[in-house]
Amino acid sequence: MAISFKVIKEDTESRARLGQLETPHGTVQTPVFMPVGTQASVKTMTPHEVSQVGGEMVLSNTYHLYLRPGHELVAEAGGLHRFMRWDGPILTDSGGFQVFSLGPLRRITDEGVTFRSHIDGSELFFSPEISMDIQMALGADVAMAFDECPPYPCSYEETRKATERTTSWARRCLKHHNRKDQALFGIIQGGVHRDLRLKSAAELSAMGFPGYGIGGLSVGEPKPLMYEVLDYLIPAMPGEKPRYLMGVGSPDCLLEGVARGVDMFDCVLPTRIARNGTVFTRDGKLVVRNAEYARDFSPLDPECDCYACRNFTRAYIRHLIKANEVLGIRLTTIHNLRFVLRLMEDIRTAIAGNHFSEMKTKFLRRFKTD
Amino acid sequence: MAISFKVIKEDTESRARLGQLETPHGTVQTPVFMPVGTQASVKTMTPHEVSQVGGEMVLSNTYHLYLRPGHELVAEAGGLHRFMRWDGPILTDSGGFQVFSLGPLRRITDEGVTFRSHIDGSELFFSPEISMDIQMALGADVAMAFDECPPYPCSYEETRKATERTTSWARRCLKHHNRKDQALFGIIQGGVHRDLRLKSAAELSAMGFPGYGIGGLSVGEPKPLMYEVLDYLIPAMPGEKPRYLMGVGSPDCLLEGVARGVDMFDCVLPTRIARNGTVFTRDGKLVVRNAEYARDFSPLDPECDCYACRNFTRAYIRHLIKANEVLGIRLTTIHNLRFVLRLMEDIRTAIAGNHFSEMKTKFLRRFKTD
Repeated sequence: MAISFKVIKEDTESRARLGQLETPHGTVQTPVFMPVGTQASVKTMTPHEVSQVGGEMVLSNTYHLYLRPGHELVAEAGGLHRFMRWDGPILTDSGGFQVFSLGPLRRITDEGVTFRSHIDGSELFFSPEISMDIQMALGADVAMAFDECPPYPCSYEETRKATERTTSWARRCLKHHNRKDQALFGIIQGGVHRDLRLKSAAELSAMGFPGYGIGGLSVGEPKPLMYEVLDYLIPAMPGEKPRYLMGVGSPDCLLEGVARGVDMFDCVLPTRIARNGTVFTRDGKLVVRNAEYARDFSPLDPECDCYACRNFTRAYIRHLIKANEVLGIRLTTIHNLRFVLRLMEDIRTAIAGNHFSEMKTKFLRRFKTD
Repeated sequence: MAISFKVIKEDTESRARLGQLETPHGTVQTPVFMPVGTQASVKTMTPHEVSQVGGEMVLSNTYHLYLRPGHELVAEAGGLHRFMRWDGPILTDSGGFQVFSLGPLRRITDEGVTFRSHIDGSELFFSPEISMDIQMALGADVAMAFDECPPYPCSYEETRKATERTTSWARRCLKHHNRKDQALFGIIQGGVHRDLRLKSAAELSAMGFPGYGIGGLSVGEPKPLMYEVLDYLIPAMPGEKPRYLMGVGSPDCLLEGVARGVDMFDCVLPTRIARNGTVFTRDGKLVVRNAEYARDFSPLDPECDCYACRNFTRAYIRHLIKANEVLGIRLTTIHNLRFVLRLMEDIRTAIAGNHFSEMKTKFLRRFKTD
């Protein structure tokens, strides 16, 4: 087995739990948030900096790396870890989410998906087997099964078909995947339909994956609906396997996800809004590029311990962003990732100390959401 | 006196010399290359990184900071050092070069220059007094006199007028400047006309500035012509004062400049070409974004000790640049600055060890120029 997972402690007032995920590239404490390095780089950051803000495991994208620079080149470089010089664990997604997000550009059959490259428009084809081949070449510690991710909203009938296909594709992935130093996680689909979610969970669980992704959430549905799905879905998932809620990363959703039993998260949100001049503070988001911060000589977040907050003012960072200086988005990215990763540290400390629910309530009372 | 300069050693085979420039923010070994932080940031880098690659003194731009964020805001932040968190020495240019490069957008009278902002097109006015006020507000260790920098080529008559105006403006700068913890350098003009250069040098020298810029070179003239000007100009400049060749930064020009007696340099070249995917190696420039490096798993420059070369391959950096990942241009920038700053270290070591001419010949024999 490439990875092993053990639950260290379970919270008594919620489904939150502490765990340890052992991988060929080190052990990760869960609940964990994985920064996203779409194109083999966590945008604007060196691997050293990702590590410094507390990043332990990163995610990279099969679809993007397949298109550029190509998985054969990455394999030739010695695999993704060596190519991008990240010595910790890596997870690659299956490419499914990306090829399905391309919308009108794609055609789905039981065999796989025909889609067009967002770079040069060329016609390409992904199947469960191809996704496995690419991910095995990339060589991450965790690969994800190739799934069909329906949009939101989506009719019951269409969701049912996508869920069935996801199950059949999961079987093909399992059959094709043969890299011993890489774990393959299944992905549960089913949209916001309870019976489909439970069916998907049952079918995937029966296949005995070493971990499970929860796909098809955080795709535009209201947050309470996502929480509702997690409420009934997670108890139907294997308790001894890591549960990974894909594409979730806002501070409030991280807390609510952990409370419902999620062990792993990834999301571009913290780094994406950073490049837009928006940062997290304990009071909520702050748009530092706004004129009101032009003469604000305090740090982005006075309670933060990151490099940006220890050294620079809102006024300077706003200036850099307005002047299109790369250092500006480097500093907001460092801060936002540190904010989220420190939140995960606080969450783990709280679970360990039996005060997670209290910590969650306190954080959410202060943190203003949109 | 805000600064003091002493010549430590003179080369016997050339005009190269070792010196020490003491400033309110530390002592700099000369010959020195100053990385350029146009908008209060050396593009893509943190101050810490600039220091790590060997940067001791940086240059920032009066014109740009006046437009954005404004010198009053910088003063309010506690001055440029505190605003950008650079604790070492800073030099600000006068804004002259920028307003004169704007070409048809500007109008020059003896009083000053009317020009249009490159950001919003608004009409603005710079005079020697205004340039001094802005630079005093910014609070760099060294300010530069406001000069008229003629283009290349430029008629004798026009160059003569610009040189006269530069002398008269230098006098006004000296009269208006009154910040005791800031040194004001004069700028010698005169184009490529020997008598005008010598006249400018004589007039400026008589005013007793603590240092002198050589302006109006590296503006498009052939390199041999620039060297010729330096050959007759530098002996006419005060020997005990630092000599600063403005806007020069290619490795070959740095060596030739040092050989002719230059103590200080600045240039955007190393950082600008880096953002374009071009890096320096001991053999000359290398365009790492070219297809031939797609599968090249060696470092940018195998002889370099920088962070980029110690950790990443040409193939990875090329991928990052092709994929528009900021990390790509961060790594090429780190490398190019380290290359130039290490060259300056090697130059100083060579002068100290009495083998500068040999070192220069050896470097130039191998380093292919365009």
